[in-house]
Amino acid sequence: MKLAAIGEFGFIGRFSPPFLQGLGENVGIGDDCAVIPWGGDLSLVVTTDLLIEDIHFLRAKISPEDLGHKSLAVNLSDIGAMGATPLCAFLSLGIPADLDVEWLDGFFLGFRRLADSWRVQLLGGDTTRSPGPLVVNVAVLGQGLTDKLKYRSSARKEDLIVVTGFLGDSGGGLKILLEGLPGDGDADYLVRSHNRPEPHLAEGAWLAAQEGVHALIDVSDGIDSDLKRIMERSRCGCLVNLEDLPVSPALGRAAARYQWALPELAACGGEDYCLLATVAKEDYPALEAGFKRRFNKPLATIGSIIEPEEGLRYLSRGQPVALSRAGFDHFSSRER
Amino acid sequence: MKLAAIGEFGFIGRFSPPFLQGLGENVGIGDDCAVIPWGGDLSLVVTTDLLIEDIHFLRAKISPEDLGHKSLAVNLSDIGAMGATPLCAFLSLGIPADLDVEWLDGFFLGFRRLADSWRVQLLGGDTTRSPGPLVVNVAVLGQGLTDKLKYRSSARKEDLIVVTGFLGDSGGGLKILLEGLPGDGDADYLVRSHNRPEPHLAEGAWLAAQEGVHALIDVSDGIDSDLKRIMERSRCGCLVNLEDLPVSPALGRAAARYQWALPELAACGGEDYCLLATVAKEDYPALEAGFKRRFNKPLATIGSIIEPEEGLRYLSRGQPVALSRAGFDHFSSRER
Repeated sequence: MKLAAIGEFGFIGRFSPPFLQGLGENVGIGDDCAVIPWGGDLSLVVTTDLLIEDIHFLRAKISPEDLGHKSLAVNLSDIGAMGATPLCAFLSLGIPADLDVEWLDGFFLGFRRLADSWRVQLLGGDTTRSPGPLVVNVAVLGQGLTDKLKYRSSARKEDLIVVTGFLGDSGGGLKILLEGLPGDGDADYLVRSHNRPEPHLAEGAWLAAQEGVHALIDVSDGIDSDLKRIMERSRCGCLVNLEDLPVSPALGRAAARYQWALPELAACGGEDYCLLATVAKEDYPALEAGFKRRFNKPLATIGSIIEPEEGLRYLSRGQPVALSRAGFDHFSSRER
Repeated sequence: MKLAAIGEFGFIGRFSPPFLQGLGENVGIGDDCAVIPWGGDLSLVVTTDLLIEDIHFLRAKISPEDLGHKSLAVNLSDIGAMGATPLCAFLSLGIPADLDVEWLDGFFLGFRRLADSWRVQLLGGDTTRSPGPLVVNVAVLGQGLTDKLKYRSSARKEDLIVVTGFLGDSGGGLKILLEGLPGDGDADYLVRSHNRPEPHLAEGAWLAAQEGVHALIDVSDGIDSDLKRIMERSRCGCLVNLEDLPVSPALGRAAARYQWALPELAACGGEDYCLLATVAKEDYPALEAGFKRRFNKPLATIGSIIEPEEGLRYLSRGQPVALSRAGFDHFSSRER
């Protein structure tokens, strides 16, 4: 049987169970990071991401500095989604023989600048040839207070669903890159959102320390996919008001100009790398005000947690609607 | 400038230094594993290895079970080379779309059986498509007593150099695979040594606990390359008696049959995944006897540590000789 026949989620389901047997209560798995007791109040958190040329990036569409930055950023985003602090990174590179040394200099510059800005030390890795695509695997270790770590499994009924940044900018940037649309201020902003995401580490650490924050996840595949992860782990449903999805002015203008389906792009575009949290209703006013003070930007409320049997429901002007495009699946559909 | 012009060791030298700045005294880097203080007497050790199809393996020449086993084994070997104990693993897979699900079942079976036998838990990873080669990245975390961990940098003058297993079997197995030589008992044994190495974790933990064991490394690229790593980190030279390289009876017979250059294969073949230690002369007799008792196989003494200015010297029947083939380099020469 070919993988195309079962799709990525089927694949993960097929292969995960044997490894889950025998895991202790204290070891997290299947979240943004694995969680390992460190001793005392601390836990170690670990995440890893594999990026392969022509699947996750096109070398012609991203600068080496940006790819170095992004390779680390997507992992730091997972650390932020636990409310943890990154410590160190491990970088494996599979390098096509014809790659320029100058290109690699740029890649390391981008990686190092982001690492330095969060005091993340590169402690090891592996370097080898690749017969074809450039291959980048990054693993990041972090730490957090065990009882402050946040999981996908902690959403509670009637929680509000909030996000820490705009949705769809990265997806818009990808459309501009793939369709070769002309550069201008808006286009450059959107492309930058796609190629050079900033991990919401500070937001994650702050949210994890607040009263009333329950579940936390980073928006890597689009809320349409990432909410399903919350639903599965928390055994809940989600109600989302499409009008409440926070969209940047630049994306709004580009969507109008190119007739992009805006709610779909915001919900399914993916690679936003902001955080999505579920928050107790009664704690939300204080949280919202505190977040605004701390980060000088708003939290956006996009919906609420509902009963599991209701599933993932989208409303537009109060009426149920279906999105025209589901989250992507690595094996069974074309990737973003 | 293309990478072929600087080679892998030049590459590592070129890119490593910026990351080494600011590292604390307690953090190991550039060894088999990175070492991170855990608290109390313990340190965390971390290693990662990237295997790419057609560079590190040929899918037609290794069973999926063996590749799953080997992907984990090469990382466990690095843990063993610190004298540490493995705790958990992270597996990233980049999978060609046409791969059989049954093939992956086999891969996971091989990975899991080895993981289970060492009580290593698979706690996470990443799964994605690959546009070409199968890509496997494994990271393993382990732990060890901080003051018992062994480094490449601790070799001392006049230490004896010992290895924990046969050399060259894996290189012989690769020759049999690549040259399509006929299978028989010897050939099957050699191919198995190449495709299904057993990590010397028990040997590493035992050696790390003994008096007089100084430097420790796993033999991944052949002693010719791995001794140079000891020399660089310990600022020493190495003298090796080619007649003392331990060669299995099967390899001896196959080398005679196919006219293989035996000392070169034993020194440069690579992927032996036994351990190489340097040991104080006065402690060696007790160590040798204890190893024999514990593991029912001999330690092999292959040479001694000499002055740094003497470099890596090979003797045959007491006379200096040059090996005809140096250790491989990912970028500038054909790989094994």
